Amino acid sequence: MIEKVESQMNLLVEEVGYSRATELFKTLKGGKRLRAKLIFKIAPNAENAPRLGAIVELIHAASLLHDDVIDDAMTRRGVSSVNATQGSKTSIMLGDILYSKAFATLVEFDDSIASRIASAVTSLSVGEMIDVEMASSFNKDEDKYLEMIYLKTASLIEACSACGAILAGKDPEKFALYGKNLGLAFQIIDDILDITSDEETLGKPALNDFIEGKCTLPYIYLYEALDPVDKKRLTSCHSRKISDLDSEWIKEEMVKLKTIEKSYMLAQKLTQEAIEAVKGEKELVNILESMMKRNF
Amino acid sequence: MIEKVESQMNLLVEEVGYSRATELFKTLKGGKRLRAKLIFKIAPNAENAPRLGAIVELIHAASLLHDDVIDDAMTRRGVSSVNATQGSKTSIMLGDILYSKAFATLVEFDDSIASRIASAVTSLSVGEMIDVEMASSFNKDEDKYLEMIYLKTASLIEACSACGAILAGKDPEKFALYGKNLGLAFQIIDDILDITSDEETLGKPALNDFIEGKCTLPYIYLYEALDPVDKKRLTSCHSRKISDLDSEWIKEEMVKLKTIEKSYMLAQKLTQEAIEAVKGEKELVNILESMMKRNF
Repeated sequence: MIEKVESQMNLLVEEVGYSRATELFKTLKGGKRLRAKLIFKIAPNAENAPRLGAIVELIHAASLLHDDVIDDAMTRRGVSSVNATQGSKTSIMLGDILYSKAFATLVEFDDSIASRIASAVTSLSVGEMIDVEMASSFNKDEDKYLEMIYLKTASLIEACSACGAILAGKDPEKFALYGKNLGLAFQIIDDILDITSDEETLGKPALNDFIEGKCTLPYIYLYEALDPVDKKRLTSCHSRKISDLDSEWIKEEMVKLKTIEKSYMLAQKLTQEAIEAVKGEKELVNILESMMKRNF
Repeated sequence: MIEKVESQMNLLVEEVGYSRATELFKTLKGGKRLRAKLIFKIAPNAENAPRLGAIVELIHAASLLHDDVIDDAMTRRGVSSVNATQGSKTSIMLGDILYSKAFATLVEFDDSIASRIASAVTSLSVGEMIDVEMASSFNKDEDKYLEMIYLKTASLIEACSACGAILAGKDPEKFALYGKNLGLAFQIIDDILDITSDEETLGKPALNDFIEGKCTLPYIYLYEALDPVDKKRLTSCHSRKISDLDSEWIKEEMVKLKTIEKSYMLAQKLTQEAIEAVKGEKELVNILESMMKRNF
């Protein structure tokens, strides 16, 4: 099924009719195709599931091309990012081409589908901007953080699940809840891996988020648990190259104060709610479980 | 009518629900609103013309935000560009928000409208990328240039005219031809003004296009008309800060060899065809005529 999505993606990019875009697109690594996978796991018999899957994966690819420019990311999925090899301008322009081709194709679908996906892209763009804005100071607010990752990550996954349900004639709201919680848990796990994985596994430096100014859940919980002196030490490390000593200290305190555990627990709670929402959909439960167990 | 478009635009941006985006959007200068104007001149009685006008103006604004990053433009419509004051990342992100909100709203419209506008945005994105690609060497090919400005500038104007016609129950193809030729002529005049206007009127340095590597029509015609030695001199000036001496020489040769006149003649020919296509639509003829006479 993923092959069908891949070939639809290639077809759509070919249709744009610009060879340089096609060539650049071919250099992108595909990733897990989680969003497309959700659609065809929920609507395995819908003829146009691969096409919708291709649309959302083009949108996701476009958003990553722009994110990498915004975050100055030099690697993506373990290889050099387009902005690293071709410059940030090419990354912006290719992103715009993929976004607009995806939208132009989305028009083929029923309004209920097109509007959910399109609105999710607005959320995603706003989420990216709030993410950057929040990184300018040490964020201590858990709710603000969860709202931001909902917009940035979960909203599109939520829309994909709901649209899969629409294609399959199932209840979109149940599947929307599944997708939303999957998306939130996915991002929380991603943020944990940024702390617990090594550079090689991640394809980027460890504690990269914090160095970029991003206070993810384990940092928010850590701040809450530290005494005033250590709170100061933690905030003074924010948004700069931190010493090995400070880096080790942060990791040790997170273990001692169980802030990674606490973050993981929240992801697990969200996952449990997601399982409840789609009771009996074995494949969807599998996706959740392997997502929770992943280490990259 | 333009007020209705402006208020619809503000409404749509407010709906995004992110105050920083609303504030930044308010700092953008509106420009001529040519695309929205076309829609409501063609469909003056269509209730949703202002809404479609707002959508296409949001798309246009988004494309300019990205263009200014790609072209390193520090000014836009005589004031500092968003990338100059807020950084290129903000410009990219705000552009993404406006694009996606426009697309999410476009879904409300009939497929025949939504697909024309959405496809035009793909063309526009491809056109921008080809424009940048072409600037890497001295382009001598008139057809290639016209194809690029069709994609970059005329395609959206063409789509706006056609969609105005659909809203009004008129023949979209006739109006598409009008819009296409208007767009092409518009860009040719823009390119001429880059040469003939002074820095103050333009809000950017004169001969800016050529310095950026962009060989617009007057340069292509100049190259064709020069002898081999001067051809070499012209190409050696390409894509770099040129001396006042060379800059004067280029302008003088353009006058002597009538390459600006020749470019203007092509714009006029296109305009004539556009007038033919929409015979009797007085307001549309007025738009064309004042566009041909503009000096900024």
